[in-house]
Amino acid sequence: MRKNVSISTEELLFHLKKKGDFFSAEKLAQDLKINFKELKQAKKELEKWEYMIESDSKKGYKLAQIPDLLLPMEIKFDLKSKILGQEIHSYKALNSTNDLAFDLAEGEAPEGTLVVAEKQSKGKGRLGRSWFSSPKLGIWMSLILRPSILPSQAPGLSIAASLALVLTTKELTGLPAFIKWPNDVIVNNRKFCGILTELSAELDKINFVILGVGINVNHTERDFPKNLRNIATSLRIEKGEQVSRVDFLKRFLEKFEKIYLQYKKTGLLTFKDECLRHSYLLGKKIKIQVGSEILEGKAENLDDNGALILRTKEGLKTITAGDVSLL
Amino acid sequence: MRKNVSISTEELLFHLKKKGDFFSAEKLAQDLKINFKELKQAKKELEKWEYMIESDSKKGYKLAQIPDLLLPMEIKFDLKSKILGQEIHSYKALNSTNDLAFDLAEGEAPEGTLVVAEKQSKGKGRLGRSWFSSPKLGIWMSLILRPSILPSQAPGLSIAASLALVLTTKELTGLPAFIKWPNDVIVNNRKFCGILTELSAELDKINFVILGVGINVNHTERDFPKNLRNIATSLRIEKGEQVSRVDFLKRFLEKFEKIYLQYKKTGLLTFKDECLRHSYLLGKKIKIQVGSEILEGKAENLDDNGALILRTKEGLKTITAGDVSLL
Repeated sequence: MRKNVSISTEELLFHLKKKGDFFSAEKLAQDLKINFKELKQAKKELEKWEYMIESDSKKGYKLAQIPDLLLPMEIKFDLKSKILGQEIHSYKALNSTNDLAFDLAEGEAPEGTLVVAEKQSKGKGRLGRSWFSSPKLGIWMSLILRPSILPSQAPGLSIAASLALVLTTKELTGLPAFIKWPNDVIVNNRKFCGILTELSAELDKINFVILGVGINVNHTERDFPKNLRNIATSLRIEKGEQVSRVDFLKRFLEKFEKIYLQYKKTGLLTFKDECLRHSYLLGKKIKIQVGSEILEGKAENLDDNGALILRTKEGLKTITAGDVSLL
Repeated sequence: MRKNVSISTEELLFHLKKKGDFFSAEKLAQDLKINFKELKQAKKELEKWEYMIESDSKKGYKLAQIPDLLLPMEIKFDLKSKILGQEIHSYKALNSTNDLAFDLAEGEAPEGTLVVAEKQSKGKGRLGRSWFSSPKLGIWMSLILRPSILPSQAPGLSIAASLALVLTTKELTGLPAFIKWPNDVIVNNRKFCGILTELSAELDKINFVILGVGINVNHTERDFPKNLRNIATSLRIEKGEQVSRVDFLKRFLEKFEKIYLQYKKTGLLTFKDECLRHSYLLGKKIKIQVGSEILEGKAENLDDNGALILRTKEGLKTITAGDVSLL
């Protein structure tokens, strides 16, 4: 795990960012209440994290480049959320962010704890499938949630997160993204986000939910294995330019927090219409595989827990989750 | 954890049990393919586990007393189940058998793994409540199950286990026990078994279920704290004599395995009638608290997933779990 940097290092970064220009070393040491030696150490520590800092014997220090890494001090900088991402566990590599988050949640990790990794060696998709998570190109993250809701309401959390992802995508890239129930977000008919919701629960009480999110951000076509190129895409491919992963993650945490807090009170009620407006499946004829059963019908609505209401020949059916394809 | 005894020790026990009388040391050593020194070591090891063995220089060895402990070699002896209890983790004391089973299940522990402890320091009941688990008087156990069922079908596992507990109680003690939905078994209007079903799941797939069962076996009235005496009972209190914990556990594993294997195929269907016949609530007016909501009505049926169907003034409601009291 990436160790927390010392407070003076984080403060130095904060001051340099706020200034946006050269900052006199004397003034910096004074503001940070440290001596010159400690100031140099703090600068070195930042450089160790791949920050580039210009130094000038007269003008002082200037932040020249911020690394393209999901560092806690970058994610936390100016982050407006109150719960999500207040505790961050950031790794260069993990087997699976969901697995680590699950372990942390079994301990005392507070609601909103974020686990993020540059790379997953065993990234997980639904039903034990793998999730392709190449280094530094995407956001591979998991959030620990501790909502007082029934297990049957958990599907709504995936939908709520999907909505936050759609809105974040729209705001940062202008791209029209759609919620593909139950757990994908797509642009141009291809998937760039997947959600894996796992839970520890009693029959009528959720102990905790791990909301895993994988977002393909800066992949080019050839970054995907051949078998995925027709079905997977990234923000970069669609937008035609790189997107800051840190910015995306921060905006997502802020947007999802608002939706999540509302969800805990009223379920999907408040933003169901918004979800339906951004739905990829609504009104379409689809096929859903649930376990070994295959259902066909028209996607008609969502219920207040996030389950899909399918109009079949035999009437309406409510489905918690499944593998969907268009007919 | 209680370490596994060596094979020759377990075999010695097996031979002495089968014989039921003195067994010549010469013949024993021959049958076990060990020498006299090893035979003595095996005998000593059994004595360390509180077995009492008579020895006679002419007649050989005889098993005089079996300890009243939930030892793997006792549980496994002549156990007819094929899956449940084939792997046993037995402890003198644990915080909670469910917690350890959960950890083991996240690893590679196979379906049917049994965790059992003489004492729990943090025995768990539903909704984070505590479960009183005094040393050596009860069976405090958890089973790891890996059924391919939907999370919504999990309530039926509690009911299935309750049925197995009712049948085991009837067979071993003759006492008429009843299933008190969702997770208790009672005799004479007092509870002697509680079930805590916990699961790790995706939205439409169970990773594993931990079925925790607490059974008050040999408590006397005064073994219970005063606040529990009106609501809790034990087999010994009701029957008026001690009941072998090992026997009860073995019969339960065998009975539950049959029901469980059927449940994986057809849900409650096959034995729903039997569950209803042994239901404590059926046909009665009850009050159910689900979260902050309180429902009143008549307990009318179980659905095929083990949820209760309650007839309220507003019509039928299907309830996954809750706190029930008679009106």
